[in-house]
Parts: sequence; C-alpha cells; structure tokens
Amino acid sequence: MPQKVIVLVSGGMDSVVALYHAHKQYEVVAGLSFNYGSKHNHQEIPCAAWHCDRLRIRHRVVTLDFMENLFKSSLLRGGAKIPNGHYEEKTMQQTVVPFRNGILLAIAGGYADSIGAQGVVIAAHAGDHTIYPDCRKEFMDAMNEALKLGTYGHIQVLGQFVNLTKSWFVSRGHELGVDFTKTWSCYKGDAIHCGVCGTCVERREAFIQAKVDDPTVYASTDPIPPKP
Amino acid sequence: MPQKVIVLVSGGMDSVVALYHAHKQYEVVAGLSFNYGSKHNHQEIPCAAWHCDRLRIRHRVVTLDFMENLFKSSLLRGGAKIPNGHYEEKTMQQTVVPFRNGILLAIAGGYADSIGAQGVVIAAHAGDHTIYPDCRKEFMDAMNEALKLGTYGHIQVLGQFVNLTKSWFVSRGHELGVDFTKTWSCYKGDAIHCGVCGTCVERREAFIQAKVDDPTVYASTDPIPPKP
Repeated sequence: MPQKVIVLVSGGMDSVVALYHAHKQYEVVAGLSFNYGSKHNHQEIPCAAWHCDRLRIRHRVVTLDFMENLFKSSLLRGGAKIPNGHYEEKTMQQTVVPFRNGILLAIAGGYADSIGAQGVVIAAHAGDHTIYPDCRKEFMDAMNEALKLGTYGHIQVLGQFVNLTKSWFVSRGHELGVDFTKTWSCYKGDAIHCGVCGTCVERREAFIQAKVDDPTVYASTDPIPPKP
Repeated sequence: MPQKVIVLVSGGMDSVVALYHAHKQYEVVAGLSFNYGSKHNHQEIPCAAWHCDRLRIRHRVVTLDFMENLFKSSLLRGGAKIPNGHYEEKTMQQTVVPFRNGILLAIAGGYADSIGAQGVVIAAHAGDHTIYPDCRKEFMDAMNEALKLGTYGHIQVLGQFVNLTKSWFVSRGHELGVDFTKTWSCYKGDAIHCGVCGTCVERREAFIQAKVDDPTVYASTDPIPPKP
C-alpha cells in the first residue's frame, strides 16, 4: 500500500471529498489542479486551493494552454454553449475533453515520481452513466499498468472511487466536515451555480439522494426534470 | 489498421525518420512537437517544423511549462549539467524526465481523438539500453490499452520501432532521403552538436554502425571511448 500520495483536486465536490478521504488514509504530499482552459477553472481552482490550505497540503496548479487551442469541447472557453437539462448521451458528449483523465493522470504520475510519492488519487467515478470512457474501471486499470511500468517508482493509480456515485461523495464529505460551499460544479462558470446545466442537476440530485442539506446557492432551483 | 495518424516528432533523428516512414504507410494528419523546457528544445523544434513543412504536414507545438517547474531532470533548463561520455545507468538516469513518453502519448492521443485520427506514431526505442522505463515494449502495450479504452476513437499507440536500434533509423532515413543535418540530438543545446555527451556519442555510433556518412558538425570528434 502506498504511503505518500498526491491527489488530483479540481475543486469540484468529488475531488475535494477525495482529498479529505485520502488525508485520512495516506500522507498527502500534494494536491494538484489543472488549468486547462475550461469555462469554470477560475471558479474551481480557488476552491481546491482553499481546501489544501485548510489541510496544510501543498497545492500546485498545472496550466495546460494547449487544450484550448487544439482540443474541441463545449467545456472549454471558445467551445459551444453548455447545454441545460439532465445529461443525455448526446449533450454530454459535447462536454467531453478527449482523454482528459488520461492526460491528468500521466502528468500527475510523472510529478509523483519526481517528488517521491507512490500513488495518485483520482476521484473519477462513472456515477449513473458511463459516457466518459476515461472514467471507467477498465481505463483506470490500464492507466495504472502504464504508470507502474513507465515510472521508476512504479506509481499506482488509486481509483478506488470509480464504482461509487456522486451521492456517496456527499455523504462521505458530510461525515468529514467538508464545507461544500467551497466546492464548484457548474460547467458554465458564472458567478453562482446556474442550477440547470447537467452538472448542476447532478449536484442537486446527489444532495437529495444523500439526504444532506444542500448549502449551494443556485441561480435557478426549478424542479429537476425526470430523466429521459 | 489505422488510416489517419499523428506523429510525435521532436526534431531528433529517430522521430524525423519515423515521420518519413509513417508518411509512406499512413495519411499523417499532423506532426506534434513538445516544448517542455529541455535545454535542446529550441534546437530540435525548428528541425521538426522543417521536415513537416517539406512533407506538407501540419505541424503543432504544445508547450508544457509545468515540467520545468515541477519535474527534476538534468535534461531540463535549470537542471544539473549534462554529463559527457557514454551513457551509463547512473549518468543517464539524471536525464530522465519522469513518465515523459506517457505524458506525450496521453496528450497526443487526446489530440488525435479530437481531430479524427486513429493512431499516434512514436519513435521511442530501447536501443541498446533499457534505462528509460517508458521506452519499453511493455509500457507501450499498456499505454495502447489505456488509450484504446479511454477514447471514443479507440486511439492506438503505434510503437512499431520499440525493438529497433538507432542505426536502423540512420539506414532507413538514408533510404528515404532524410537530410540529417536538419535533425538535432545534443542534450546540451549549444549552437552545434557537442559530440561528447551521451546522446551525441550514440548519434555518432549509429552512423558508424549503419555505414552511412555522418553529415553532422560536431564541436569535438574525439575518439568514442569504449563502453564501460
């Protein structure tokens, strides 16, 4: 079992809970955020920094300018408008940044090897849908193999959350005293959570399912439409 | 078999030959270089651009600032001095950038998926030594699996060169009419090849083994010391 790990912490709800969870299990030697030109990075990353600071964990931000220039996704600045409503295969696919988790894990793995950590914790989970190919267990296992074989330190991918749901993160974060007002989900990246894009809808549902009060301020709390 | 591919082309001898070789096999939709803060990037990348231009292939450069700041390696600006002489395990290990090929393949794979290519050609080969863990066949296979599983387009890693030697690249490039004066090897990144660092020594040996005249201008052509 690894002792020293780094945690991928975007500042979203799931990765912040993963940070607190990992902090109980391991020595977390760094929290790593990526500024890859998404519409909501400027809202997410300060949240990641806040929680790392609270836990006295070194926080590093890696800027990946190339994504905005080379990759196509509505998640990125310059991409199409973020769609409203429940995630459906078609609308969600637009927000996929190709191989994002693969890229983040590769960089985090190299960084881990560079600073003597043995593993990288990633909060990716399939939730109810498996549309992101790089959130699936099979991908995590393959990436784990690639990192183990490709680094001197045989870095491990710690993707223990892959089969859990978003409501699990709410419950676990609630237990660990996570301040959810300091986490960011909305893909639109306006001043407050919109409440109606796919990722806001999932956030709202996760609190309902976990039976935890949702402290988030939403621009709209229109009833959540049933799943298509 | 993939039709459209992108080629990782650093501007070194091996990847330039891989570019010409791939150009015979596939439709090469882009050549991709990385500016990751190495001491010799400023010498290599113009070579990559020159050959892409000659073959009428789109050339893109991805800048990875974070490596210089976060990763430790004598290959990087700000790192220790590049050692002279034949590669030995100890001196060579200093020049390793942790998981470099994993990071480059992950980014290239995402880019390939984004522009509708089906594979990524990488010139990595173990040569006579296997000190770089991310140049081994087992790593290439694992990374291939991760990319296939983690992308919509099931991107393949085309690491067909992994068991070949540097002298093979000289022979093949000679056949294909590659202008080797427009390729760069020296890790020191001075105005001309030093001739005495590990990578210059390997370049010189590869021409000798391939029985091809070496057109490179070296600062020193001292006799190559026998391997330790």
